[in-house]
This record gives sequence, structure tokens and C-alpha cells, in this order.
Amino acid sequence: MYKLIKKCGNARRGEFTTVHGTVQTPAFMNVGTCAAIKGGLSSYDLDEIRCQVELCNTYHLHVRPGDELIKELGGLHKFMGWDKPILTDSGGFQVFSLAKLRNIKEEGVTFSSHIDGRKIFMGPEESMRIQSNLASTIAMAFDECVENPAPYKYSKESCERTTRWLYRCKEEMERLNSLHDTLNKKQMLFGINQGCTYDDLRIEHMQKIAELDLDGYAIGGLAVGEPKEDMYRIISAVEPYMPKEKPRYLMGVGTPGNIIEAVSRGVDIFDCVMPSRNARHGHLFTWDGIINLNNAKFENDSEPIEPGCQCPTCQRHSKAYIRHLFKAKEVLGLRLAVTHNLYFYNTLMERIREALDNDTFDEFKEKYVDLLDARKK
Amino acid sequence: MYKLIKKCGNARRGEFTTVHGTVQTPAFMNVGTCAAIKGGLSSYDLDEIRCQVELCNTYHLHVRPGDELIKELGGLHKFMGWDKPILTDSGGFQVFSLAKLRNIKEEGVTFSSHIDGRKIFMGPEESMRIQSNLASTIAMAFDECVENPAPYKYSKESCERTTRWLYRCKEEMERLNSLHDTLNKKQMLFGINQGCTYDDLRIEHMQKIAELDLDGYAIGGLAVGEPKEDMYRIISAVEPYMPKEKPRYLMGVGTPGNIIEAVSRGVDIFDCVMPSRNARHGHLFTWDGIINLNNAKFENDSEPIEPGCQCPTCQRHSKAYIRHLFKAKEVLGLRLAVTHNLYFYNTLMERIREALDNDTFDEFKEKYVDLLDARKK
Repeated sequence: MYKLIKKCGNARRGEFTTVHGTVQTPAFMNVGTCAAIKGGLSSYDLDEIRCQVELCNTYHLHVRPGDELIKELGGLHKFMGWDKPILTDSGGFQVFSLAKLRNIKEEGVTFSSHIDGRKIFMGPEESMRIQSNLASTIAMAFDECVENPAPYKYSKESCERTTRWLYRCKEEMERLNSLHDTLNKKQMLFGINQGCTYDDLRIEHMQKIAELDLDGYAIGGLAVGEPKEDMYRIISAVEPYMPKEKPRYLMGVGTPGNIIEAVSRGVDIFDCVMPSRNARHGHLFTWDGIINLNNAKFENDSEPIEPGCQCPTCQRHSKAYIRHLFKAKEVLGLRLAVTHNLYFYNTLMERIREALDNDTFDEFKEKYVDLLDARKK
Repeated sequence: MYKLIKKCGNARRGEFTTVHGTVQTPAFMNVGTCAAIKGGLSSYDLDEIRCQVELCNTYHLHVRPGDELIKELGGLHKFMGWDKPILTDSGGFQVFSLAKLRNIKEEGVTFSSHIDGRKIFMGPEESMRIQSNLASTIAMAFDECVENPAPYKYSKESCERTTRWLYRCKEEMERLNSLHDTLNKKQMLFGINQGCTYDDLRIEHMQKIAELDLDGYAIGGLAVGEPKEDMYRIISAVEPYMPKEKPRYLMGVGTPGNIIEAVSRGVDIFDCVMPSRNARHGHLFTWDGIINLNNAKFENDSEPIEPGCQCPTCQRHSKAYIRHLFKAKEVLGLRLAVTHNLYFYNTLMERIREALDNDTFDEFKEKYVDLLDARKK
């Protein structure tokens, strides 16, 4: 259940209550693709980095270790040791980006596993069953994620199929939630808006899926190659048609600047692999911009990544030490860098919420929207 | 300063006091080759796994990031965030095992770095200067570590050179400890007994180096290919000639069974990469023997690695989850496995100390000496 606490322009300060606890929004979900955050963080480290929601990938967990095994072991929460909300994606994005030799039909998609090449079929019902086995807090609808740019005709047809798939998702999720042996009988379902970069398709699709009264609505198919101006334009075009009383999730986005812009346009929830991927390359976020730890000037820098930062890494370790760990290919370097970047993203959201609470979001946006995405001067 | 609390046969229960705190012996040192434990553990995790002493490698830190940089940053303790004892090896073992194109002379050894091939010269004075820059609690003497088996004549000559090198080490360490800008002016020096598998050479060498009144004595050059019976025989042969009032360190040893046998022969301190290396391969120590996590039977095993184990891994995670992390190549799997194995080694030493305290060491040895090294039935 989503409660809108306050609006500042289009930006929303809210609370989203689930069976696994309440999420303060705007919120950033921390990505644990294979039931683990990349870089060696355990679920037991997530409180310390102020994570509210963990996101896991349905496709990855279906192919390994298998969703039935996870169900047998008591579901994803128990499997990875995290009792707060978990969102699972639908598998759709990975089917269309990772898997090979795919064949799309009305029933669903046949594809080859990227692990062992075996043939897998996934449609709306299969995606719901897998996510029900995983017993996540929030399941995502199975959709087709079309690359940008895409022809108008194909985009429209794909969108219409995604709508039909959504009806099947909802029906199957309701059936699964009513079953005797379902682990999470209150599993939520979010619909996903598609329509590539065409405003009219986006709006028409949003209007149709809004009718279904789902637990939340996502904007999908963005941040997949289009200019960021297109992304912002589409969010602004679609937002008026998104139910006000439901959380809105912008999938796979993005830089701190992207997130601030999207919040200002009415988005509540985000996820992105950027903080961990950047960390892997030594690119670390600070409130003065991004630093590259590989830079030789940090070799003898005894200061933390960001002086004053309260993250476990900055409380304990210097740039010189972490840089050394990167050079020596010690995985501890990765863990410390990912810890800092995820803490940065989670506290970015805290500061956005504070700014909304204090009616200072416009000043916050003006100060940080470009600064945080740029190299530190 | 070493205080012998109690003897049970030849086994010794003691306390070893350093400027960085007191070590209860027998003790196992946790290896952090490049100033980090392999597998992503931070120095801040070491209390939780009941580590008393961390060991770092002089050769590795000299070539990267450089001991002068570490001195500039305040020494190894500050660099890696660990305020308890650190022992640094002398670099000798790595010079003789890792480095290429080495050339041994009376002055020392010229060799090519395994990182970038650059020529490096290291002799007793250089090793002491590097270790003084690192400012470890305990420095090890620079010695030649000869492979087993080795010809008698070469072993004898090498041994004699190692003795001459030890005199130079001691003189240089005393000089360094007296300098104004030395970080640890109370840096200890341990001598290393060599002599390959020849009892007479071992004893003669031990007698000579015992005259120097060093802070401790190590037995080196074992566990490098010889049968374990030879190792035990040499320890027993040399032990009567080791100063009673000094800690004794058996370098690079070994399995839990090796450690129990060596304790029963009068050894106080150990180090070995085995717990972390085995962890990397999914081989985990338990009090019923070793399990191989890759075994298919653990796929749906919701129990911890060892039920009842108080390590952070067993308190939180199941075998099924850790096995999945290994299969998915998530570095978290490595961290959890290393955490368990190091905790096992550190608590093995605790239980050895308890058995000595309670006069039950013989029973302890009989029960565990073979069991812990074997596959769990």
C-alpha cells in the first residue's frame, strides 16, 4: 500500500508498505542479481549501507540454482538471509538481452540459457510461477523489452502483446497467491509501461494498464540506448496517466543526476547496476562528483574516499589502501568500493527524501543534478 | 616477551607479549599476503573470526605498493586497519619460490620481480629495512629456504650462510630500531632454523642461532615437499635446542593434524595458507572432518557448514546458499568460506589451549589428530 505523504511540484515523498516492511520513497533498490550483491556483500551487510529493498533477477535464479530449489529451501528471503522487501524482475529483460536464439510468440518466448544452452520457455504464467516460487515481496509483470530505437509498427504490436501478457500475469498471480502451498500469499504485482520512445504509444499503454489496479507501475524499456532527454520527456508524458495512489518504479535507472531528474518528474523507486559496476572500475561517487581511484594521485592519499562519509569503508579505510587492493587484485578492494557506492546511492535517496520533507528539493536538485554525475574537480 | 604458563609433555601453553598486545599460544596467524586476507575479509572482520595475529608478506608488499609508501602512510597497522600483532616474513621464501632468475651471493640475492620483471637486490640488511618500513610487530630473519630434498653439501653451506645472514639481520635491526624516524622502535626479530631434512645440520644450526638471544625462533624450510614424518622427526630433533623462554614458530604449517602434532612437540605459533586456499576450492573444515561443498548432496542442504559453529558464516548462511554462490561465481561465496575456515583454525587453537589448560591435551590429540584432516564420513 502506497501512502503519498507530500508533493513538491511533481516530486513525491511517500511510504510503501509491504508484508516485509515499509519502504520510504523515493528509494533505490540494491541489485543482487544471483541472490547476492556483486563484490562480496552479504545480505547481513545491507542494513549498514542503509539498503531498504533488494532486487534479484528471476531469469538468473531460474537457471541457477533453480526457483523450485529456492522454494524448497523456504524462498528467497530465507535463502539469502534478508527479511526486508525483495523485488524480482520478470526475467523479460534478461530473456531479451542475455539469452540466445529467442523466438517470440503469443504464448511467450523460447530461448537458450546463457549458462548451458538448454532450451527454456517463458511466458507470463511461467514468469509468475517462478517469482511465486522465489516468494519475493514484489513480482514484475512479464513484458517484452524492445531496444531503442525501434520501428513504430513493431513497437505498437509489441506493446499490445505486453498488455495481453499483463492480463495473463495478473490472473496467474491471483491464482498462485490463493494456493495452499504458496510461500508469499500476498505477493504484489507491478505492471510495466512500454512503448519505446513514442509518447503516444507510451500514454496509450499506460492508460490501458492503469485499468488493472495493480500494486504498482513501472516504466520499462528506458536507459537502453536512447538520449537522456528522451527518457525525461517520456517520464513527463506518461506520469499524468500513472495512478497517483500507487508507487512508480523507473527500471534500470540510473546516474545520480538521472534519479534526481526522475524524482522531480514523479518517480518513487529505482534500481541500477551502476553503483556496483562503477565501483568495479574504481569509479567512486562523492558529493563533489566522481573520483577515479586508479588515478596516480591517490597512491599516497591517506584520506577516506569521501572525508566525513559514514559508510563502513570510509569509516575505516584510506584511498591509498583501497587503490592498493585494486592494483593487487584483492577482492577486498571490490567489496570496499561497492560498499561505498551503494551507501552513496542509498543516502542520496535519504537526502532527496529530507529535501522533500524540508521543502528544499528544488535547491537540492539545482545544486547536485549535474555535480554528482561529473568528475570531481 | 614469552611466558610459559604450563607444559603437558612437550606441549606448551604460553603467553607472548608484544607492543601490539598479548598473544595466547599456541596460536595460528592469519595470512594477509598483500595486506589483505584473500577472499575479501577486512582487518575489521578479524576480531569476529577470533584472529590474534595477522601475517603479511614482505616481498609482496615491497614490490607493491612499496614499503616506503607504507611507511609514509604510517606503517602496515595503519595501512590495513589492524592494531594487534603483525608478523612479516623476511621475503626469503618468496625470493626463492616466486621470483625469477635469482642469483645468490654472500651479500644477498638478485632476482626479477614476478610483477614487472625489474631487477631487485635483497640481502639481510634490505629485508630488515623493508620490514622496519612496514613497522610490523615481528620481523623474520632473511634466510635461504632450500627445497627438499637437497644435497647435504649444499644444505650445509646454505645453512652456514643463513647463520652469517642472521648476524647481519640482528645488527641491522638493532640499528634501525635506534633510529629517530623508525615507526616501531621495539620491532622484534625471530631467527629461522634451516638445515633441510638433515638432523645434524638442523641441530647444529639451532645451537648457533640460539646464542643470539633473539625474540623468538622459527623452524623454516619444512612443509616444502618432504613427508610429514620427516617434518615431525626434525621438530623433535631440534626442539631440545630451542630456547625455552622464547616462542617457537613452525613456518607454513599446516593441516589441523600437523598443527596438533607440532604442538605436542613444543611448537607455539603457526601460519598457513591452507584454510583460505581450501576454502577457495570449497573444502571446508569441520570438527567431523573436511566437507567438499561442490558435492551435489549439499545442493538443497539448509543447514550451516557445521551446525552449532559460532562463526559469522554458520550463524547466517546455509550450505545450499554458499554452494550456489560458488556455482554462480559470486565472490561472496569465497568470503563466507574463508571466514568459516579461518574461524575453524583460530578456534582449533583455542580448543588446543583449553585442552592444555585442562590437562586433556592427550585425549584431544587422540580424538582429533586424524579426524580433522580426513574427509567427513
